[in-house]
Amino acid sequence: MSAPTGNPYARIDDLLSNVRNFKIIESTLREGEQFANSHYSTETKIKIATMLDQFGVDYLELTNPCSSPQSRADLETICKLGLKAKILTHTRCTIGDAKIACDAGVDGVDVVIGTSQFLREHSLGGKDMVAITKQALEVIEYIKSRGCEVRFSTEDSFRSDLVDLLSIYKAVSQAGVDRVGIADTVGCASPRQVYDLVRTLRGCVSCDIEVHFHDDTGCAVANAFSALEAGATHVDTSVLGIGERNGITPLGALMARMMPSSRDYVLSKYNLKMIKSIEDFVAEEVEINTPFNNPITGFCAFTHKAGIHAKAILNSPSTYEILKPEDFGLTRYVHFTSRLTGWNVIKSRISQLGLIMTDDQVKEVTAKIKAMADIRPLAIDDADSIIRSFHLELNNGEGQKGQSEQNGQNAQNGQVEA
Amino acid sequence: MSAPTGNPYARIDDLLSNVRNFKIIESTLREGEQFANSHYSTETKIKIATMLDQFGVDYLELTNPCSSPQSRADLETICKLGLKAKILTHTRCTIGDAKIACDAGVDGVDVVIGTSQFLREHSLGGKDMVAITKQALEVIEYIKSRGCEVRFSTEDSFRSDLVDLLSIYKAVSQAGVDRVGIADTVGCASPRQVYDLVRTLRGCVSCDIEVHFHDDTGCAVANAFSALEAGATHVDTSVLGIGERNGITPLGALMARMMPSSRDYVLSKYNLKMIKSIEDFVAEEVEINTPFNNPITGFCAFTHKAGIHAKAILNSPSTYEILKPEDFGLTRYVHFTSRLTGWNVIKSRISQLGLIMTDDQVKEVTAKIKAMADIRPLAIDDADSIIRSFHLELNNGEGQKGQSEQNGQNAQNGQVEA
Repeated sequence: MSAPTGNPYARIDDLLSNVRNFKIIESTLREGEQFANSHYSTETKIKIATMLDQFGVDYLELTNPCSSPQSRADLETICKLGLKAKILTHTRCTIGDAKIACDAGVDGVDVVIGTSQFLREHSLGGKDMVAITKQALEVIEYIKSRGCEVRFSTEDSFRSDLVDLLSIYKAVSQAGVDRVGIADTVGCASPRQVYDLVRTLRGCVSCDIEVHFHDDTGCAVANAFSALEAGATHVDTSVLGIGERNGITPLGALMARMMPSSRDYVLSKYNLKMIKSIEDFVAEEVEINTPFNNPITGFCAFTHKAGIHAKAILNSPSTYEILKPEDFGLTRYVHFTSRLTGWNVIKSRISQLGLIMTDDQVKEVTAKIKAMADIRPLAIDDADSIIRSFHLELNNGEGQKGQSEQNGQNAQNGQVEA
Repeated sequence: MSAPTGNPYARIDDLLSNVRNFKIIESTLREGEQFANSHYSTETKIKIATMLDQFGVDYLELTNPCSSPQSRADLETICKLGLKAKILTHTRCTIGDAKIACDAGVDGVDVVIGTSQFLREHSLGGKDMVAITKQALEVIEYIKSRGCEVRFSTEDSFRSDLVDLLSIYKAVSQAGVDRVGIADTVGCASPRQVYDLVRTLRGCVSCDIEVHFHDDTGCAVANAFSALEAGATHVDTSVLGIGERNGITPLGALMARMMPSSRDYVLSKYNLKMIKSIEDFVAEEVEINTPFNNPITGFCAFTHKAGIHAKAILNSPSTYEILKPEDFGLTRYVHFTSRLTGWNVIKSRISQLGLIMTDDQVKEVTAKIKAMADIRPLAIDDADSIIRSFHLELNNGEGQKGQSEQNGQNAQNGQVEA
């Protein structure tokens, strides 16, 4: 349990929490392959695996080798790369799948079986929990006998019977499984529900707990965080969250979530400056754009616009930023050309341009900029021109022009860097 | 308190919960104007206000009329439209701003002041809480005297001193404020923290509670949900979440989150089939793409790919869907052309093409499709050609071709509609 620091009302972790001690199971090469646009070549898989390994993820999860001959060959190839990350594959809970997975040379096998009434009826042909448990124990024993790690997960855990769930998890934990997995396969779970289920499970099993959250209702990041607070140990992610439907907990967004809570731990383990290049590579590969609102790397994640915000940011970035752009190798921008701008921001811009004005003069030119921005979108050049011509009038052109233009060369990137 | 229905382990609402009784304060015309790319014309503001009113939001919040002359004129114009939604504007906590707001004809004024140590130092020049409270009470009294609704919100509430927060909220509640607002201005809050603060506040004030969450750490939707569980009454949203930095709780994603928990309430109040057209309009206006992973309207939100998922979806959509695409006027797709496909999905496609095969034959042609998809991305046409030529071989071309092609005309949209 750690004492709160800095912020007197920060949450105090309870003893269960793994917010400052979690592992990532990166599933861009498994869940991500179930994304509508994914069709990875072998070279792409190697590149993604290598980048994620350099980033520092603990595990890489790959597609079931039974899916296709190339899937099997690629799994074998990646197992032989000698990466630091452990290599997992994700299979149905059958001896057949497990054997092929172990033969491929993986470090561990993630087996999964549906336990909700929905899936038992429509996917498993009406199997009961006794049969499912028996099957799970056989497969787990087999994988252990092959010397591999084994994780047992239910599918659609949040719509499964709680007693069924706890019974099967307890049984597999006693059988020596390395991890049990909870999966919100349909994306229906909410954070307090997650906290309650994980906390309850934490009291029933002695092994690690992995969590997997789909994002259909926009809670995949928050649910992962709540699960860690309740004692989960491993979180499944994919780059940009790609996966079935609208995907799962995104790796980058999870990092954004963890940084305010466990900055030292995150910085010690993960190479955050790689996030943008990894996301860019995967986005290009599966032909999507990084969402405009993506945490950290969305194009405006560190852009400040309203006058009241910009003023405070110029005084001290932590007023309106919980994440530091420099931690991710990125920079901050303060917009100064909109109708929402304020005179403090314009004052900063005037200073960047190397010009000198009184506060009253700054307020006067701010009014001119706001008036123009009220009519049409203003480019930086437009705003700078208004500032410069106002300044020229003030000084009747007394030889300050040369100086201001020279300094202006350092501020041509379109926005005030604060 | 409502009994759980359908799912025996669904969360039971406690007495505080407003999950089935919440209101939306739609801030695309205020928070959304602080988005980096926003520059709304008057016509655009009218169109957005009208669409959101038809959608059924309870309140529309507009930019402070003191921001610029056009902001003031546009606010007056929208107040005169005669919309069902109440019109609010969002101002600094000063008599000057409040007067101009009331003069513009609004139904209510949302005042805000920074209470965190950060903001008091860097934005308010070191004001203490006594001075802030005094100022707040004066402004509230003034707005009430003008016959307008008034909300008092702190800024950066989650980094403010809890005693300070509760003291000022209690004071303004006793002064007759209509709503108090909690704002996670920097996007640092996590769901359990939100639950705790709102629940505590619920015991200290008798008025409504509004919540405003930024999405810097990916929790804006989940935090809104947790706040409603704890007794908040009003949630701030914007279309696609546009706002400062990477924005706030998106209107569409919030609907996705609320539907599984409060389907009847949501359907009775909000016109969900408008979500896509509203998002499309705003996205075009501010020159962004709808994120690929946007709940509901992301291009693959209802696309299923892995064989095991697709099989179950074909049996019963609720196996892998917590949201029904038809509720939003959208449709479901099942991918069948990837290496992850399964024979159950191909069987469904064969039937859609009007062809007849035994299960063994279906499995044989599935292997052919998977083999081809292992080599390169397969279009639907490619997969259909493999199926058709396999079928032709089976039947030695015995006159089934005509029939199959005719049926095939109904299935040319690239994916199996299930």
